Amino acid sequence: MKNQFLFIRKANYYETDQMGIIHHSNYIRWFEEARVDFLDQIGFSYKKATEHGIDFAVLSVECQYKSMVKYGDTVAIETKIAEVSKTRIKLEYIIRDHMTQELRAIGSSSHCWYDNAKQKPVSLEKAIPELYHLFLSHHNE
Amino acid sequence: MKNQFLFIRKANYYETDQMGIIHHSNYIRWFEEARVDFLDQIGFSYKKATEHGIDFAVLSVECQYKSMVKYGDTVAIETKIAEVSKTRIKLEYIIRDHMTQELRAIGSSSHCWYDNAKQKPVSLEKAIPELYHLFLSHHNE
Amino acid sequence: MKNQFLFIRKANYYETDQMGIIHHSNYIRWFEEARVDFLDQIGFSYKKATEHGIDFAVLSVECQYKSMVKYGDTVAIETKIAEVSKTRIKLEYIIRDHMTQELRAIGSSSHCWYDNAKQKPVSLEKAIPELYHLFLSHHNE
Amino acid sequence: MKNQFLFIRKANYYETDQMGIIHHSNYIRWFEEARVDFLDQIGFSYKKATEHGIDFAVLSVECQYKSMVKYGDTVAIETKIAEVSKTRIKLEYIIRDHMTQELRAIGSSSHCWYDNAKQKPVSLEKAIPELYHLFLSHHNE
Repeated sequence: MKNQFLFIRKANYYETDQMGIIHHSNYIRWFEEARVDFLDQIGFSYKKATEHGIDFAVLSVECQYKSMVKYGDTVAIETKIAEVSKTRIKLEYIIRDHMTQELRAIGSSSHCWYDNAKQKPVSLEKAIPELYHLFLSHHNE
Repeated sequence: MKNQFLFIRKANYYETDQMGIIHHSNYIRWFEEARVDFLDQIGFSYKKATEHGIDFAVLSVECQYKSMVKYGDTVAIETKIAEVSKTRIKLEYIIRDHMTQELRAIGSSSHCWYDNAKQKPVSLEKAIPELYHLFLSHHNE
Repeated sequence: MKNQFLFIRKANYYETDQMGIIHHSNYIRWFEEARVDFLDQIGFSYKKATEHGIDFAVLSVECQYKSMVKYGDTVAIETKIAEVSKTRIKLEYIIRDHMTQELRAIGSSSHCWYDNAKQKPVSLEKAIPELYHLFLSHHNE
Repeated sequence: MKNQFLFIRKANYYETDQMGIIHHSNYIRWFEEARVDFLDQIGFSYKKATEHGIDFAVLSVECQYKSMVKYGDTVAIETKIAEVSKTRIKLEYIIRDHMTQELRAIGSSSHCWYDNAKQKPVSLEKAIPELYHLFLSHHNE
């Protein structure tokens, strides 16, 4: 199965800061966009997961900034599953300039599956088995 | 009754853009902060309203930018009720530099009361009479 | 000449608020995205303007919210020039759901041309005549 | 010397997401607010550093989310210097609920000193010796 997915997006003007670069906090939002797009690509949208009452609660995020993204640049964000279990998933992201392929940032996010009605973490295998098996099949061996 | 209320806040670095000024979209968020603080000041918090199941749905916003706010500046936002009825409220905001009193922006927002359970606009007089009468008493004649 | 331009974009999860809808402040950012895309479409990118030392200083914005945008929705933003002169431009935006064409919001933004080096407004006809004439030719009679 | 600093702030409505909690990306912005406030508290504002032509380029950030912050909550962010050298600084942040002291998040950010004119990293000891020695004196042994 395919285990790398690309999400392409332009850096917005309102995402710049007075250093003339994209403010670092926005990368965390871009990871979310890439994550959502990744779910679309594997065929089970995040929206569909939320309609099952399941959110991907964020346990942690981290990002290492390698070079600056400027307004008008287009970035390509590569997402892959680093770890997956019944209760957790860790995704890794690599941001590159879409034109030059220069490395911009590397990051990751860890999540548990959270049942909104019960207000507690749940086993994805029980909550949405279809999605759990999709993750397993796309996990990078 | 008092009909003008001040909310003081610093401009954040992450709110700047590459022109070296606060990005204009943030003023709309500052209006919300001032609105929430205004409700705290008149004694009926927005959180309390939401606990009654009532949100202030935003019907419109507008802002006229008069001079630039820079990172590190502190602004004072004056909020007052321009119009209030059973079904709507219009608030006006004046943003000034807190040190120099120089005018930065003028804006307004219009709202209806929205019942989250019923998913429709409601009369505030019926939904939260206490808040409706607070608004009336603080309305600037 | 063509006088209406469409910009398509998805509503992001991080743009939602606890009412379960896209927070109203984001529409002001979407207008900027649509504006930047409009400039790309007419053939003179905003980035190119800034490289001439010219920014589009925002004089005012306004938005009327007609119906709610939810996470996962795709919106189509139509941009057109409402007014243009040597010193100012007013753009109008109509946001519709891209699937249903339901009206979501109507708004506008007014701008002057700002010379970053001189730190003052300038005539676009003098600063970037090519762009000024592009605007004239795309102005909706 | 004092080596822990508190920054208090309320969670804003516009920072919530449709899960009904503060969106995780905002914590990265709050770290910046706490960092700026920390610099104010030790007596050398970030603004003053930027006036020396020095920015704190962000090398990395990370955040572990321990429990949810909701709209209306007030958080207390404790900042301390984890590591400091002539070329780098690492700050650690602990976010707690200001009322209950319940742990909300733990994070950190790493920075180098960046000369905006030269467009390259510099030694803080050479660029702003006063600030470098302030950091040393507040470093938690």
